[in-house]
Amino acid sequence: MTDPNAPSPDLFTGLSAFPLTPISDEEIDEAAYAGLLQRLVAAGVDSITALGSTGSYVYLSTDERARVAQLTVEHAAGIPVFVGIGALRTRDVLANVAAAEAAGAQGLLLAPVSYQPLTEDDVFELFRTVTSATDLPVVVYDNPGTTHFTFTLDLYARLADLDGVASIKIPGQAMSPPDFTAHVERIRAATGNRVSIGISGDAFGASGLNAGCDAWYTAVGGTLPAPMLAITRAAQNGEADRALELSAELQPLWDLFAELGGSLRVTAAIAEHLGLVAPHSLPLPILGLTDDQKRKAAEVADTLHLD
Amino acid sequence: MTDPNAPSPDLFTGLSAFPLTPISDEEIDEAAYAGLLQRLVAAGVDSITALGSTGSYVYLSTDERARVAQLTVEHAAGIPVFVGIGALRTRDVLANVAAAEAAGAQGLLLAPVSYQPLTEDDVFELFRTVTSATDLPVVVYDNPGTTHFTFTLDLYARLADLDGVASIKIPGQAMSPPDFTAHVERIRAATGNRVSIGISGDAFGASGLNAGCDAWYTAVGGTLPAPMLAITRAAQNGEADRALELSAELQPLWDLFAELGGSLRVTAAIAEHLGLVAPHSLPLPILGLTDDQKRKAAEVADTLHLD
Repeated sequence: MTDPNAPSPDLFTGLSAFPLTPISDEEIDEAAYAGLLQRLVAAGVDSITALGSTGSYVYLSTDERARVAQLTVEHAAGIPVFVGIGALRTRDVLANVAAAEAAGAQGLLLAPVSYQPLTEDDVFELFRTVTSATDLPVVVYDNPGTTHFTFTLDLYARLADLDGVASIKIPGQAMSPPDFTAHVERIRAATGNRVSIGISGDAFGASGLNAGCDAWYTAVGGTLPAPMLAITRAAQNGEADRALELSAELQPLWDLFAELGGSLRVTAAIAEHLGLVAPHSLPLPILGLTDDQKRKAAEVADTLHLD
Repeated sequence: MTDPNAPSPDLFTGLSAFPLTPISDEEIDEAAYAGLLQRLVAAGVDSITALGSTGSYVYLSTDERARVAQLTVEHAAGIPVFVGIGALRTRDVLANVAAAEAAGAQGLLLAPVSYQPLTEDDVFELFRTVTSATDLPVVVYDNPGTTHFTFTLDLYARLADLDGVASIKIPGQAMSPPDFTAHVERIRAATGNRVSIGISGDAFGASGLNAGCDAWYTAVGGTLPAPMLAITRAAQNGEADRALELSAELQPLWDLFAELGGSLRVTAAIAEHLGLVAPHSLPLPILGLTDDQKRKAAEVADTLHLD
């Protein structure tokens, strides 16, 4: 008998878009955020992950995060909403779980945010505590560039054994297609096919999907969903070369991410350039790109006809 | 004419003790904290820095941090109190500044806590904002192991130029005595003698003071002040060899820090072993040492007659 409350097996597949949480004068710019969500709905993304790294989750208070979760469900027009619940302290993670549940989220995204370096046991126990506290499925958020925690295959396996862990968001990295496929297969073998595997690191979306990832957890796709959906649909249709071609067309954007320290500041600058969010949309102390860098980002956006 | 409000030039010298903020059932154990402070007063430390990394500052809410700042001043018996104000978001840093001022702190300790990697300009602007917002002197907290931000000599120099920056807490590292002296002299030259320089990384306290550091910002000294004060006084009296001998006697403790990933978990385990704080005194997700590791820490504490 199937559990009527079990999440759809397809919930963590396809394109999950990670919108910015635009800030204006240190407050959440709710109108701009609603505008970003409307673009995602119009484009037809498969899911929306609010409060990912691109959504500046760790910089927001518990109340602000509850509000963003609410706004996301409100504007998602029925598209499944996942909510990032990570925080430095387990107590605060659990408060974020409750708020995400109350808002009507269909999934949770949890990164082992650290200040003091965490051990594998610290991280396992964090996920055990969270999955014990909620019926919502949890995406394991592996993002060593921000959390400074490195997952092992063995920890992936232990986490996949927890009831409630439904997907793993793996970091992108440059690999040959056969190496990438073998990498995904190793993770799949270790986790016994119990979880979906999603690629992140936007430059690696196409190659990750071609290598067998079930989902693309895309940062830039939260602001520019259309080109990322085209890549995703090509890969899903088995048109691997077409997916790579579409991704290669965006190479100037991937280069900019690599040159300017990641996707967040560039994506925010492009959203500002397109008038989707107000200037200085990131929370301080993050100043965002310099004026010169912003001009460069705007040029790339214009040349690639991103809008 | 001297500014009557200017901090004493000696304020950021000698031993500054960093107490744990003991947690019990996810709440601050105020009685245990008061007990830790009384030990520091009885030992005669030169200053107390509440809410350093050892004080688990980033894990606590703004309200909890305000309460710890209050408690510290209340129990410090006139010993100068510095308060850690770092947070991921500038807005929260400023709230911590206000609470530390209200509590009667005489100095502030600010680390560039990061999730998204910070640029030099992000960090400079953070310190500029804080020093503009308060008259209290600020200690620059350079702790790359937890903040993942690497200061350059050039940034030290820019920060030392800010009115209000009074000291730099530098990370400890293994160096020969002449290299260590040259290292401190380079920092002193870059900062134009405008700030005190304090060593951290407890294994390097003696060699740092011998190399010309003005202060020792000591984590373990917040729990075990007496042996760290003996080292400090020897170094201050020009008895460099004696300071090194006293530090070498504690080598099993320094080895344990190196083996078990830093001072926090070991210091907490020793405080628990000595009955100064209740078991499980660190905030989750930090589980603390395993039972085996705790036995090892207790053995070292007993062998060295730490109490």
